[in-house]
This record gives sequence, structure tokens and C-alpha cells, in this order.
Amino acid sequence: MNGENRTSFRGQALQKPRFNKPWRDKKRSSGFPSRGTNAPAHPGSQRSRGGDRHNEDDGPIRLFGLHPVEAALRNPARRVLRLLLTENAEHRLRESLGEIAPPIEQVTPRDLDKLLGSDAVHQGAALETEPLPEPDWQDLAESSNGRPLIVLDQVTDPHNVGAILRSSAVFGASGLVMTRRHSPPLNGVLAKSASGALELVPVALVSNLSRALDELKDAGFTIVGLDGQGEQTIEALDWSRPTAIVMGSEGKGLRELTRKTCDCLARITTDDTIASLNVSNAAAIALHTALLARKGGNA
Amino acid sequence: MNGENRTSFRGQALQKPRFNKPWRDKKRSSGFPSRGTNAPAHPGSQRSRGGDRHNEDDGPIRLFGLHPVEAALRNPARRVLRLLLTENAEHRLRESLGEIAPPIEQVTPRDLDKLLGSDAVHQGAALETEPLPEPDWQDLAESSNGRPLIVLDQVTDPHNVGAILRSSAVFGASGLVMTRRHSPPLNGVLAKSASGALELVPVALVSNLSRALDELKDAGFTIVGLDGQGEQTIEALDWSRPTAIVMGSEGKGLRELTRKTCDCLARITTDDTIASLNVSNAAAIALHTALLARKGGNA
Repeated sequence: MNGENRTSFRGQALQKPRFNKPWRDKKRSSGFPSRGTNAPAHPGSQRSRGGDRHNEDDGPIRLFGLHPVEAALRNPARRVLRLLLTENAEHRLRESLGEIAPPIEQVTPRDLDKLLGSDAVHQGAALETEPLPEPDWQDLAESSNGRPLIVLDQVTDPHNVGAILRSSAVFGASGLVMTRRHSPPLNGVLAKSASGALELVPVALVSNLSRALDELKDAGFTIVGLDGQGEQTIEALDWSRPTAIVMGSEGKGLRELTRKTCDCLARITTDDTIASLNVSNAAAIALHTALLARKGGNA
Repeated sequence: MNGENRTSFRGQALQKPRFNKPWRDKKRSSGFPSRGTNAPAHPGSQRSRGGDRHNEDDGPIRLFGLHPVEAALRNPARRVLRLLLTENAEHRLRESLGEIAPPIEQVTPRDLDKLLGSDAVHQGAALETEPLPEPDWQDLAESSNGRPLIVLDQVTDPHNVGAILRSSAVFGASGLVMTRRHSPPLNGVLAKSASGALELVPVALVSNLSRALDELKDAGFTIVGLDGQGEQTIEALDWSRPTAIVMGSEGKGLRELTRKTCDCLARITTDDTIASLNVSNAAAIALHTALLARKGGNA
């Protein structure tokens, strides 16, 4: 697996914190800035950018939960600003990580509840970091190497996007392309649902999705829109070609322009056409199907 | 699909409300009783029961969201107690249901926020109902007809269980068997995640899971534990036999006794053994795999 911020969970040198500014508690219920935090963190790649760029006022990224924090600490591309751990969490992270390089601020579970909101399942661990370097979708396409690219058309639920990242890591998607607007920020809730996979799967943001899809086509990709009304099944698709799987939000599905831009619409074979799948479950099935086709082709 | 509370979404006569007692606001943040609400509602089936029976003090089931409320109104097995709708939600439900038989209490979104908690994505619709008649797991096993049975070993997250119900409806599981303790109640959040499938897929609760699995074996079922360390893959399983797929919670996995009771442990074919799947995504992939095998066998 390539990709700019694709790294292994296994023994990586840990980043020293670069600086140590105080939390900026915005009194939002989640304790997290709500938008604009996943925009470019390094100035080198400005292709296809626009829309709501990173706004300094939005502050740093906050992650919570043992898996997301551990994975972020293992990721050398993460610039850790602050690490807050309860005694228990510190003990558990030391067990898996050994000595933890960044200075630790010891806190109580109550401190974290207050900071992150009582809904955050923080497990005693929180991390303040800079956003990850943001790859271009072209980088993801170039490094796909037979693996599908997942494209999300305004999927707004951070739990779903997080679970899709997790499945993307498990089944080897080359990366995730999302719309810059109407996508959840790459932090807290999404990272918790991704259970570490935010550090493993590169995510590219695009301002104009149909243009990006057109350019993917020009680069030789087949654009498959996942749709319950699709004329063919995903199980019968030719997965040997470079493929981008496009999924829409649960309520609205694919937008009209996105739908028109797809080379084909494909459905998952089901037993019951009344009920519908959760979008992250649909993604998992598509990725699993693509993996089996790849393995079958290689066998 | 059989099963006691398996009904169609399509045009069913609506139940008249049996009585109309006031909401009992327990000042819980979710607005929902937290346990014991999914126990037997009718006295006819008392096999294999025990543990925390339905406690009248826990009050009625509350559902919210357009899909869950619509599906519940279409389900003749639901005894509706109260139906609370905003003007918009009433308009939308009338569009899909026609005249709505139970008396409607018109409310504002704010009323529902207050009643259900601000985290509940109620979409202007809430329903108070009696619990569904609770089937026995034996009923589910008898009516399986080649479809797998899903067994959950203390999966506690209502979002995950709801999504598993949804996939069970989509891919035709014969039902869900859960532990009576350490499973989420069959109401609000779970029903919202199930997006109507709580009305479609029968759910049986058991007090002693390993005993139920032993009895399933005696009834001719193969008990497959889903486990990342499984010795064989789910794709290579013989799905032509009656099969129960057992899944554990994300943190702990299958309990030791459950694991020992399984006929075999099977894993999903993946590309990366470091990352792990969300449990509802794993369930969706197993059910999809079983469906394809069934369809392949019938072709």
C-alpha cells in the first residue's frame, strides 16, 4: 500500500511535539471544530483545490480513543501537538507502544469528558495534532496498482465515513476521494469509527467531483456508481480494470451530475429490494467483492 | 420470510391504538428506557426464557425517525400507543402511507428534541408502542429455509445491531439471536439504525447462549464463529447446510465458551491483517457471501 500518509501500525519512530499551544475550547458540544480541518497542511500540492481551505481559526485536529490515538502516534506523518492520557490509558499505550515520546499530560476521565463532550468514547486518550498532509486524488490514482479507489459523493455521517476508511484498509482500497464540502472533518468521531485506519488510508478532497471523475476516466479508470437500481451487479463487474467506486449519501444517493458522469451504475445482489443497505456496509461488500476478484485473477 | 413478526413494508392495515397513556418521561438523556424493553409481549411462548423479563416499569418502546416510524405503522404486529408528528413529518408520512389511522399528536421539532434528547435524529416523527411479540430462537431456526441465522454474542452497540438487522433484511437472514443481557434494547437508536428492518427481521433473546448454540447443533445447524484468526475462510464454507453465524463484540470478540461451542471459526478474506472490520460490516459481508452461495446453488 502506497499513498502519502499510508503507514504501518507497526513500530514506527514517534514524532516529537513541535509546539505546545493550549487547547482552544470552543465550547462546541463535541469539543471539535466542525468544518475545514481537513484542508491542506503542506503547501506543496495545490492541484484541484479550492473551496473552504484550512482556516487557522479552526485550530488543530483532535483525536480520541485508544485505537485512533495509538495509530496516530505510530504515524510519522502526524505532528503531535498535545497528548492527554489518563493513568490507565497511559499504561495501556505504554504496553503496546513502549516509551511514548511526546510529553504526556495526565488527566482524569472527567477532564476528557469536559473537553470532548460526554458523548465522546475517549477511553482515557486524546491527541491534538496538525492535519495530515493532504494527498491529491491523482496521487491515489497513480498508486492504485489494481486496487479500487473509493469516491464519496457528499456522505456526511462521520461514523459511516470512518467505517468506510476501516474497510478500505482491510480490503486494500488505494484511497478515499471525498467532496471538500458536505464531508465530515477528518478528526474525532470519524477517526474513532475508523479505528486507526485514518492513518492508513490516504484521503483526498476535491472541490468539483464530476470534474475529478472525468479526469479519472481520462486516466483510464472505470467509474462505477453504486446504486440499488443499477443495471448490472457488482459481482459481475470486470474488476481487473482500474476502478473507482462512487457512493452517495444514504438519503439522497448519487447526485444527478455524479450519476451521469459514471460509466455504469451497479447494484449489490440482494434478496430483498425493499430494505436498503447502510452505506458503509455497501462499501465493505463492494471492496470485499473487488478483493476476491483480484485474488481470483492473481491465483 | 416467515417468523412471527416478519411482515412486509407494503400496504398493511394499520393498528388502532389500544390505549393512550401519557409519556412517562424518565429524564434519561436518550428519552428511552435503557434495558428490559424487548422481553415477551405475549404470553404464548415461554420456552428458554429467563433473566431480566419485561418490567412494566420500563414503560413502552419509543421509536423515532421517518423510516422506523413508517415501518412500525405498516407492521400489524405493532400496537401503537402514541404517534407524535411535526406538520412536515405528518405530510411526508401521509404521502407514503395515505390516511394514518392512529390519532396524531402534532408537535414541534423542539418538543421532540426535549422528549428524545437533542442527539436523536427524529426527523419530526416519534412513536410509542408496545414491544413486538418476541419469537423463540427455535421458531427462527425452523423457518430458516436455507437462510443463515445471525447470532450476536454480547454486541452492545445499538448502531451496529441496527445495521446488522438492516443487512439481515437485505440479504435474507432468517433472524437474529442475541443474548438477553448485554444487548441493546430494541428501540430508538437501534431502530433508527435498522431503518425499518426491526419490523422485518425477527429477533429472539436467549439467556444462555452456549446452550442455545448446542441446541441449534442438535437441530442440524452448523455453528460458524466469525473470527479474524479463523482456520478457514467464509468464502470457502459450505453454505448449503443450515448455518448460524456467530459474532462477538468488537472489543472482546467471541467469549471463550461461545468460541468452544462453535463447529468452526471462519475469517473473511482480507488484504491487510492489521486493520479490523467493523462488526456490522463483517456481518454484511458474511450475509452477502451466504446469499451468493445460495443463489449459485439454486442457479
